[in-house]
Amino acid sequence: MQPETYDLVILGCGPAGLSAAINAMIRNKKVLVLGDEVCSPPLHKAMKIDNYLGLPDMSGTEILEKFMQHAMRMKVEIRPARADMINEMDGLFNILIGDDMIETRSIVIATGIPYKPALPSENDFLGKGLGYCATCDGPLYRDRDVLIISHSEEGEGEADFMAEICRKVYYIPLYRQEPKLDSRIEVLTDKPVEIIGNDTVEGCKLKNGQIINVDGIFVLGGETAPDRLIPGLLLKDNHIQVNRQQETNLPGVFAAGDCTGAPYQVAKSVGEGQVAGLNAARYASRR
Amino acid sequence: MQPETYDLVILGCGPAGLSAAINAMIRNKKVLVLGDEVCSPPLHKAMKIDNYLGLPDMSGTEILEKFMQHAMRMKVEIRPARADMINEMDGLFNILIGDDMIETRSIVIATGIPYKPALPSENDFLGKGLGYCATCDGPLYRDRDVLIISHSEEGEGEADFMAEICRKVYYIPLYRQEPKLDSRIEVLTDKPVEIIGNDTVEGCKLKNGQIINVDGIFVLGGETAPDRLIPGLLLKDNHIQVNRQQETNLPGVFAAGDCTGAPYQVAKSVGEGQVAGLNAARYASRR
Repeated sequence: MQPETYDLVILGCGPAGLSAAINAMIRNKKVLVLGDEVCSPPLHKAMKIDNYLGLPDMSGTEILEKFMQHAMRMKVEIRPARADMINEMDGLFNILIGDDMIETRSIVIATGIPYKPALPSENDFLGKGLGYCATCDGPLYRDRDVLIISHSEEGEGEADFMAEICRKVYYIPLYRQEPKLDSRIEVLTDKPVEIIGNDTVEGCKLKNGQIINVDGIFVLGGETAPDRLIPGLLLKDNHIQVNRQQETNLPGVFAAGDCTGAPYQVAKSVGEGQVAGLNAARYASRR
Repeated sequence: MQPETYDLVILGCGPAGLSAAINAMIRNKKVLVLGDEVCSPPLHKAMKIDNYLGLPDMSGTEILEKFMQHAMRMKVEIRPARADMINEMDGLFNILIGDDMIETRSIVIATGIPYKPALPSENDFLGKGLGYCATCDGPLYRDRDVLIISHSEEGEGEADFMAEICRKVYYIPLYRQEPKLDSRIEVLTDKPVEIIGNDTVEGCKLKNGQIINVDGIFVLGGETAPDRLIPGLLLKDNHIQVNRQQETNLPGVFAAGDCTGAPYQVAKSVGEGQVAGLNAARYASRR
């Protein structure tokens, strides 16, 4: 089956992503927004926002609702899904979303405040026993012991898969719902605080001081850092490097909002989303 | 009398200027906005704006009204006046407004789309018989003939002054109201189209083909180009050069909105105004 082709796919449904979307829609572009169930979790928690010009004295939830209404009014297509992998081929980007594949001429990254590691030395152990995709690296841990730390229920399927091939699977849910898991999996309720190991992962220390000895640790369901998602994307001070046209170092890839740097503010995100959306629309037209 | 001292003076009361103002007010800064009677004339004329996230389907006038209401709610001080001259001394900026002088720790320039010359070769004749301040250059034209082209009624006072010292004063109003002028002044109703002269001004050609022979031409009441207002301010492609923090090349001077470059859009202006306002507030705090 031929994959569906968009002019613009936007990663993220917060202020920057929705602003990019409405601006590209006005230019008659075919636009898809990939979002989470909750768009912009930090904004959702904001008690009062008084500095988005024209909409004074709003809660974060109220302002997000106004934004979403505007997007719905413009018939923006929003899919509650996450890009798993992005590849460029002949000037078109292929985006893998679960089992589905779509194509797009341009991309706006609007994934919010950069991913903070769940564990202090996560970056040091990356690829040395620590990973972000259990099913990808699974075969490496056949008959060995692993710990899965998951930010969301989505991690449960991956844990069940690992239970089939590993000797022992531990699971730490970082969310409220009771996990429903294969009975071979041992659920731990304490928080992970430290990775144990010299060069490679040997275990994980919990808050109560207990050490879980494992060969592999997977952190699942957190945001994927954009530079892992799109190979070659340049960062600067942990944010995506952009110029004043919101262009990244990769042609056809734009970025807007908190992922491009502070201040983490609504108007800044909406403004950058507009510039990114207009420039992505123009880029798509020229292809 | 000691001049009043502000943390931040903002030039312009369009979307960028008002956004800068509310953001600096939230940081408890003493803020003054210098604006025209009409804030953002181009926006005023916009029939429909549908791409400022959260406020769909607005006319330019409606959106400006929302913005002004927000500013009034935050008690932003707006003065319908224009900065005539800006000098920096010991890290404080002195701003001359008519006969009044104020001081400020930081400045945000938000003066909109760069000034377009009223006449094609205006820039070539600047300082060679063409000027923007009749009362400043007046003495040079004692007993000589001048033409005053004015975008607003404000030019009438300057024309009356020139009538005292010049041999002959012609006046072309580029506005609708009937000018009220000294009886010695000759009002022309035709439009000016071309400056006549080799190296220096010798006259002005009107649309009907008539040539008015004069020694000096003054164009009044148009926006003052920001780089003439603040000596040393760097431009790039006719716009004020800024980085992603909205900093110009001059410490303490920030710029936001259309004056920094395209796209000329509301959300872009509001976002840049926010960043400029927050950074100017921080700059003022550190002094």
